[in-house]
Amino acid sequence: MSRKDAQLQALVAPIANDLAAMREVLSDALSSDVPAVSDMTAHIGRFRGKQLRGGLVLLCAHGRASETAERGDLAVVSAIVELIHLATLVHDDVLDGADKRRRVASVNRRWDNQVAVLLGDFLYSRAFHLSTTLPTSLVSQLLSQITQEICSGEIEQAAGRYDFEMPVENYERIATAKTGALYGAACELGMRYPGGSEFDGAEMRAFGRELGLAFQIVDDLIDLEGDEEVAGKSTGTDVEDGKVTLAVLHTYRAAEAVTRAAIRDAYTLPGLEDEPGGRLGRLLEVCDMGPGIAEARERARELVDRARARLNRLPEGPSREALHALTEFVLERRW
Amino acid sequence: MSRKDAQLQALVAPIANDLAAMREVLSDALSSDVPAVSDMTAHIGRFRGKQLRGGLVLLCAHGRASETAERGDLAVVSAIVELIHLATLVHDDVLDGADKRRRVASVNRRWDNQVAVLLGDFLYSRAFHLSTTLPTSLVSQLLSQITQEICSGEIEQAAGRYDFEMPVENYERIATAKTGALYGAACELGMRYPGGSEFDGAEMRAFGRELGLAFQIVDDLIDLEGDEEVAGKSTGTDVEDGKVTLAVLHTYRAAEAVTRAAIRDAYTLPGLEDEPGGRLGRLLEVCDMGPGIAEARERARELVDRARARLNRLPEGPSREALHALTEFVLERRW
Repeated sequence: MSRKDAQLQALVAPIANDLAAMREVLSDALSSDVPAVSDMTAHIGRFRGKQLRGGLVLLCAHGRASETAERGDLAVVSAIVELIHLATLVHDDVLDGADKRRRVASVNRRWDNQVAVLLGDFLYSRAFHLSTTLPTSLVSQLLSQITQEICSGEIEQAAGRYDFEMPVENYERIATAKTGALYGAACELGMRYPGGSEFDGAEMRAFGRELGLAFQIVDDLIDLEGDEEVAGKSTGTDVEDGKVTLAVLHTYRAAEAVTRAAIRDAYTLPGLEDEPGGRLGRLLEVCDMGPGIAEARERARELVDRARARLNRLPEGPSREALHALTEFVLERRW
Repeated sequence: MSRKDAQLQALVAPIANDLAAMREVLSDALSSDVPAVSDMTAHIGRFRGKQLRGGLVLLCAHGRASETAERGDLAVVSAIVELIHLATLVHDDVLDGADKRRRVASVNRRWDNQVAVLLGDFLYSRAFHLSTTLPTSLVSQLLSQITQEICSGEIEQAAGRYDFEMPVENYERIATAKTGALYGAACELGMRYPGGSEFDGAEMRAFGRELGLAFQIVDDLIDLEGDEEVAGKSTGTDVEDGKVTLAVLHTYRAAEAVTRAAIRDAYTLPGLEDEPGGRLGRLLEVCDMGPGIAEARERARELVDRARARLNRLPEGPSREALHALTEFVLERRW
């Protein structure tokens, strides 16, 4: 086990058994009688990532004051959240034209875009179907709501490509929709399932949305300054795809006209993507991204601080401590 | 109104008011606060097609012996079925690289593949979310089940491209999954919603699956021999995409080795797609597709006959007559 895996394992130690149960449900959900489908689901089983979203469901369920759901149901709820995340990953890789996902070939690369679209649809459907097997409709309701927000955010992001003057609020709304929404739903489900009131989940939903936004800001920084070896996935993809992320927005806003033009060129000049270093290399050459990166990192820190303050509403105990440690992990991670 | 529109309108006259209510729900469901999303949903509102699937829900609900659901709920159920169909259409156009959909530019053409993938995801999510607002989970359960079948079928189809020796059973399993499954679910929901037993819906589910398979066979024939002007969409796309449909399977099976090679060439020779007439033109040149087309059409007729026999289980009345006439329409349509 690598050091970073060990670090994450230690964080989720209080819910290790439940995570194992979640993985079992997930593995069942990734099976199919149709060989063409099971070939692909077996492949994406190898993507197994940080599983933070499923972990959030379980940590919140363990950390809450009121009696929690059946252990078996919790395994299903957390697996559903992970399935939805997997579906978004498979479609994201199509949208981004990514080649690798956690050191494994992306579905669009190993097969093609067509089946990657279909596999994502299949995973969404399976997640929804699994949610209809639960005794209450809370999971179905919340997650279908959130999936709409995720898609709207991604569509807004696509419409805003190459928009260097996008207000920071728009960036944050999009990033919250893309990532914060599912983090928030994971925490809310952990707090509420099987049927608590919306009020019970609101504080931890807010925690999840802030944490998720911070996660996305850091994710964008990793794409901008990250090392592909450490990250385990392609980097520089945002610049290739015309996504103007937070550090670039800050840098552009502060730059002189000449530098602004050079930044736009790095994103758009034909042929640049085939030169050594690609568009990202050019971008880092033409401007000092340092202050913009620092400002983005500072914003992530601020969000994590705000999220942490909400944890005081939970009873003290190992789950609350683990959630606290997780916020630090989200901030400090390089992968 | 064109003659063919008038013909279809006459068929669904018994449920005209309910269809209008369904369209209202559908139009609401296609709205969004995010401008980038509402631009697209407004665009696909113009796809308005035959709405056979929503019509099947309503005709079965009206035709059934037992008391039916609330009128308002039926509008929602039928709109959900249409939304799922719309989602599959948007993704299909990405998979097929189609330029037109009912004389309107496809989403992938008007925008690009990326947002078309996202819009399809958005529509699926909205459909599922709408289903969670209903008082029972029957619609959520059935439709999430069926969506998995649709995706599996499409994946199997993608894996079987250029397979000229595919057994006819595989073609039919795939076509049933792609089209019959949703027809079957529409009929079953009309018979059962809000909560009838599976037994109550089984016969009309079988009716829908047979009718849907017949519809798909005819759809494939239209792509093979259809006139783009009449069809209102691109034709010849199956040959371009390597899909070996029923008439081609029959023709290939009956052909000599030389003709078989010529058929494979029509599908695969580089550059053919840019010649006048394209791959489809070449295919029709190198073999006599007539007997294969006749055999496929005969199979569609057989399926429709079998489906019709099931209608005897319904009480006599205008809905049963309309369902009967609809089976004829499915067979005779050229668009």
